[in-house]
Amino acid sequence: MLSNTAEYALRAMAWLTLTPDQLVSAGNLAEATRVPADYLAKILQQLSQAGLITGRRGVGGGYKLARSADDIHMLDVLNVVDPVERLKSCPVGLETHGPNLCPLHQKIDEAIGAVCNVFGNVTLTDLCTQGEGVKPLCEVHAQPKPELVQPTLAPPPPATDTPSA
Amino acid sequence: MLSNTAEYALRAMAWLTLTPDQLVSAGNLAEATRVPADYLAKILQQLSQAGLITGRRGVGGGYKLARSADDIHMLDVLNVVDPVERLKSCPVGLETHGPNLCPLHQKIDEAIGAVCNVFGNVTLTDLCTQGEGVKPLCEVHAQPKPELVQPTLAPPPPATDTPSA
Repeated sequence: MLSNTAEYALRAMAWLTLTPDQLVSAGNLAEATRVPADYLAKILQQLSQAGLITGRRGVGGGYKLARSADDIHMLDVLNVVDPVERLKSCPVGLETHGPNLCPLHQKIDEAIGAVCNVFGNVTLTDLCTQGEGVKPLCEVHAQPKPELVQPTLAPPPPATDTPSA
Repeated sequence: MLSNTAEYALRAMAWLTLTPDQLVSAGNLAEATRVPADYLAKILQQLSQAGLITGRRGVGGGYKLARSADDIHMLDVLNVVDPVERLKSCPVGLETHGPNLCPLHQKIDEAIGAVCNVFGNVTLTDLCTQGEGVKPLCEVHAQPKPELVQPTLAPPPPATDTPSA
């Protein structure tokens, strides 16, 4: 149901939440999230342009959350890369329906509303503190690997990876 | 959130529900649902192969529901053209997660479950009998157009439109 783009964006944001106050290089982020680097680069660019992450170019550069993980909900992430939009008028364009949805589109809108309700009530902090030890992207009992958190002599990301910030 | 394919399939099934005991040609169905004919032809083929609709080729041929609209839920339609699947194990493939989802994937699964809950509880009959006069694909106070219901001398659908039945 969720697009690959949405799933990948959420993984990236979860990883940045798990590695606070660090700049994570695009390459290490791709490795941690198991997302193809080129694909992830485009997603990171969108998240950066939307102000959810910030970055720094060059050696030792990378990305981090632009604000507290308490203030970013799953829905905020989705709405950047694959917006979840309620139906405000007839998608078929019937004039006499307008904002009065037929039962087909009422039910579709109800499902969209249910999805918004789930994703709108969960922060990135929730994703990384709940779960009784099962954290996103981490094997159980393992912490984020230091080498993924602290890029040392990694090469700078390619041009397409560079944040817009 | 819903793919175009899923939306179009639901429109087609709603129209066939509104025109019971009729064979509706692929061309008329495309017109009624406002879906590009080539695109709809592929969807109709899937719905036919899955046993939700049946068809007859040639002049005067077309499609109808394969069983009662009471027995077909929105989710049945979606599961043919764009399956909505619950998460049964870690999508990242982490060995120590397995069936124990992390909070990220728990929430994604919760949203999928909410969608299944909405679409699994609504039949095609519900879509066409609820709504206080606002029926899918019909202007308010208008019935399905007779010329769309009763194909007369319409040409047979092109080869790609022919049902597999």
